[in-house]
Amino acid sequence: MTLVLFSAPDSVWDEYRDVLPRAIARAGVEARIIRDDALTDPTEVDYIVYAPSSRLKDFTPFTRLKAVLNLWAGVEAIAPNPTLKAPLARMVDYGLTEGMVEWCVGHTLRHHLGMDQDIRRNDAEWHPHVPPLARWRNITVLGLGALGEAVARALVDLNFRVTGWSRRQKDIGGICCLSGDDGLREALSSAEILILLLPLTDNTRDLMDRNRLALLPKGACVINPGRGPLIVDEDLIDALDSGQIAHATLDVFRTEPLPPEHPFWAHDGVTVTPHIASDTRPQSAADVVAENLRRGETGEPFLHLVDRSAGY
Amino acid sequence: MTLVLFSAPDSVWDEYRDVLPRAIARAGVEARIIRDDALTDPTEVDYIVYAPSSRLKDFTPFTRLKAVLNLWAGVEAIAPNPTLKAPLARMVDYGLTEGMVEWCVGHTLRHHLGMDQDIRRNDAEWHPHVPPLARWRNITVLGLGALGEAVARALVDLNFRVTGWSRRQKDIGGICCLSGDDGLREALSSAEILILLLPLTDNTRDLMDRNRLALLPKGACVINPGRGPLIVDEDLIDALDSGQIAHATLDVFRTEPLPPEHPFWAHDGVTVTPHIASDTRPQSAADVVAENLRRGETGEPFLHLVDRSAGY
Repeated sequence: MTLVLFSAPDSVWDEYRDVLPRAIARAGVEARIIRDDALTDPTEVDYIVYAPSSRLKDFTPFTRLKAVLNLWAGVEAIAPNPTLKAPLARMVDYGLTEGMVEWCVGHTLRHHLGMDQDIRRNDAEWHPHVPPLARWRNITVLGLGALGEAVARALVDLNFRVTGWSRRQKDIGGICCLSGDDGLREALSSAEILILLLPLTDNTRDLMDRNRLALLPKGACVINPGRGPLIVDEDLIDALDSGQIAHATLDVFRTEPLPPEHPFWAHDGVTVTPHIASDTRPQSAADVVAENLRRGETGEPFLHLVDRSAGY
Repeated sequence: MTLVLFSAPDSVWDEYRDVLPRAIARAGVEARIIRDDALTDPTEVDYIVYAPSSRLKDFTPFTRLKAVLNLWAGVEAIAPNPTLKAPLARMVDYGLTEGMVEWCVGHTLRHHLGMDQDIRRNDAEWHPHVPPLARWRNITVLGLGALGEAVARALVDLNFRVTGWSRRQKDIGGICCLSGDDGLREALSSAEILILLLPLTDNTRDLMDRNRLALLPKGACVINPGRGPLIVDEDLIDALDSGQIAHATLDVFRTEPLPPEHPFWAHDGVTVTPHIASDTRPQSAADVVAENLRRGETGEPFLHLVDRSAGY
């Protein structure tokens, strides 16, 4: 019998206690799920289902571990852990991707159409403001992983002109794909709306500093559903104050919840959304975990393995 | 030489004076364009390019008229005119359709995601509100003409569950198509978000009265980029006040500009947009006009002819 350690706080377990056993049974795997407090012998554990908020940080005692299956898309809390030798799979489920696409497309259209002007109106004046067509609007997506590519494709389907940038050169139909430092400058220089979907690595931390914000066309909008530290907060505030950036819609922050005293809350040019762009829905995520257990038990390759040398 | 009367106010002519002659030349038609004040002999006019704001209301003297080419999608100002015997073509250009799709998809996603909560926030409190996925959200589009069908298809591409209703039964892949009175009741009963894209006819005027608003699921959102009189204003206000309707986003009104004293302006549950959902862009519209002139001169059937017995 396969032994699965579900290493996560009670609040996470409450969401999975019903759906995960059912998904594992549907996948045809016979497994016993235990939680951290019931763990007596780490050498008997075959798989760890892991939430970033887990208190488990030392994987050394888990000598039989076949894989760690992360419940979140982001793995920066676990990927650099030197005690982890087993394969690490990140969560890539349709709920995460679809939720992210819906949030990104929605906020892109919001900025494209200039919706806030009508939503936040407090007069009774009729001022028609007709936006350009999407076919005349340049959007840049930084990061072309599973989420970035899906967002870019959805924007292309709506006729936007989409440029994508990634560390490794990609080739995606309908999207102008760039890479490298020169590519980044080119990608930023045309971005009327910029969407940040990069993973957080040593190379991407503080990427959007004052110099790179200055490369954007004046009056650009920035949308960040990726990771908070991709942006230098103070530099963004300065760029908003100078008019270089017209608006920033931010879903992720260096500290979450965003502290009440942080200037983003009160800034008229910032929309704060409380890390809702992409949320793991237990039903779909449980299916992904179960499929990887099935693969491990039948000797098939795991899905969504992390390249730990790259950090994602 | 073909004689074209451009019957529209100066403000419209200013937008077309450059692009229309070029588009006609590109289509290979030799035509002379005159304006109303230069018209001496109506019997010499081959075509009338018509804006609804034109002062021309009596078509009787235009004995040689081959067609009237309307510059707008809506034809209710001209379709019922008994003096018009020539074919009437409405405007169906990619700019109108794409603009409408972008506006409708944007405001649908806005309501779907609950964006206003973050856009209109005036505290610094972190309250995550994760919406359901689009695949679990029911949208209904009333009207499956060129615009309604394009909007419905774009919503399906984003995974929404889309029901469409039209006077005549349609069959569109991925969309639950309904018609008739029973179909209307069914279409309304599931509509978490309702989009009105019906033409204005005797059958659709006042369609969304208190009885039909009551058929919607409690807390539904209504989006009207179609025609103002599709909705009974007082009944909508009552439905908003009772909580039956959570929000209405309205782009069209019985009187435009919407008078400052109209209760829609001040109502917290109403977003007024100033008739911007779909606007004729002169470049693309001029191409459509020129193509119909070419068709008329070469004996090919006109595009986008109005069924005047149906009123659209």
